Amino acid sequence: MSEKQNMIYGRNAVTEAIRAEAGIEKIIIQKNIEGEGRKIFALAKKAKIPVQPVPRFVLDKETGGAAHQGVAAYVTEYEYTDLAAMLGAAREAGEPPFLVLLDGIEDPQNLGAILRSCEGAGVHGVLIPKHRAASVNGTVMKVSAGAAAFVRVARITNAAATLKELQEKGLWVFGLDMGGAPYREADYGGSGGVCLVVGSEGGGISRLVRESCDFLVRIPMHGRVGSLNASNAAAVVLFEIASRPRA
Amino acid sequence: MSEKQNMIYGRNAVTEAIRAEAGIEKIIIQKNIEGEGRKIFALAKKAKIPVQPVPRFVLDKETGGAAHQGVAAYVTEYEYTDLAAMLGAAREAGEPPFLVLLDGIEDPQNLGAILRSCEGAGVHGVLIPKHRAASVNGTVMKVSAGAAAFVRVARITNAAATLKELQEKGLWVFGLDMGGAPYREADYGGSGGVCLVVGSEGGGISRLVRESCDFLVRIPMHGRVGSLNASNAAAVVLFEIASRPRA
Repeated sequence: MSEKQNMIYGRNAVTEAIRAEAGIEKIIIQKNIEGEGRKIFALAKKAKIPVQPVPRFVLDKETGGAAHQGVAAYVTEYEYTDLAAMLGAAREAGEPPFLVLLDGIEDPQNLGAILRSCEGAGVHGVLIPKHRAASVNGTVMKVSAGAAAFVRVARITNAAATLKELQEKGLWVFGLDMGGAPYREADYGGSGGVCLVVGSEGGGISRLVRESCDFLVRIPMHGRVGSLNASNAAAVVLFEIASRPRA
Repeated sequence: MSEKQNMIYGRNAVTEAIRAEAGIEKIIIQKNIEGEGRKIFALAKKAKIPVQPVPRFVLDKETGGAAHQGVAAYVTEYEYTDLAAMLGAAREAGEPPFLVLLDGIEDPQNLGAILRSCEGAGVHGVLIPKHRAASVNGTVMKVSAGAAAFVRVARITNAAATLKELQEKGLWVFGLDMGGAPYREADYGGSGGVCLVVGSEGGGISRLVRESCDFLVRIPMHGRVGSLNASNAAAVVLFEIASRPRA
């Protein structure tokens, strides 16, 4: 992983990451920065994160010319976990497992926003394919506002096989698909737990994965466009599940 | 507006825009394109949209070097509307007005995703400030998958004054704010209608606008990061309101 991939930049992203204690090793900040930048300085000091004032060109170089707004943070490399750890976390919390499987999300912006929503909805883990999908890099970390550091992510090789394994462990698998039933009408309350499958930006869930789902749910559309952005769709259903009483 | 700003590009975006009849004037497609590109050709023909095969460098030039995947569409310039038209549309539909006010959304990606969610949730109109906010350009149109062409958008000069006007017309104004009550507990069912206020990516709703709201609602977070991405948060509450019975 290059240094750029281990960076978060921009004032909001760095501020959120400090607040969330997202594994920041060091912050670099533009010399003589005013206003919002000063606040970040104070916040970092309080969080005992080293801050190094640097000339603007260093920020430009380190972030690869991104819109850094005078501040960037080096974060520890992302550590993936595995399914057993996710199920263990659910058990420890005394909650039915609440997992998410992303079937081919390729856009780091979408992945970052989805991880942030997953963390906010209290999921125990997110499963992402090793191939033909975005991995958790610096952009994803930044877009997730640091949330990616707290949500367990495991990389899987075969989505259909993983879903079968989950079903054998008693989880119900719900796929987000335009051909499904209205998402509000589904029963997510099983004590065995839930896995929500979210498909790719363009093609939705792949056929094989769709056929592995126990239920398909859709978000009823009231306009002319047939679907929501993948991360928006995920958020709507994630918070529906999060709000339901679960045994 | 430059030609680039009037363009949608990429296979998913152009396909969605054709399906949604999003005011495409012409499509340019890379010569000898295979697979997915052929499908777009057929779809456009069916929708009676002129398609011009061009060499790759023309696509590169017209899209300003964007990731066009061999296809781009010229769309008619965005036409803003006004509050009266939005309220008229609600009246015609026999529905209580359902409006959204975006208080300082600056990121075109977020604006595009929010407009797509607004369109999907059936809102009658979206109010965006003229200053310090993203306007509906080509990027917004593309990210919205064409939905921006169907959702009424009005530009306003003073958010607090507009909210006051809405309140005088009988709408309840709900602001999305971390200090609010859980969004599920709110009553959005008033026959006078609803306006949802969504704040900026970094700072949320500005103080003056927050003070203009009748109610503040928040999305309860189950993790360590304090908030969702602006477009994800908007989607969650928009579809909550859309799913409620409204007089």
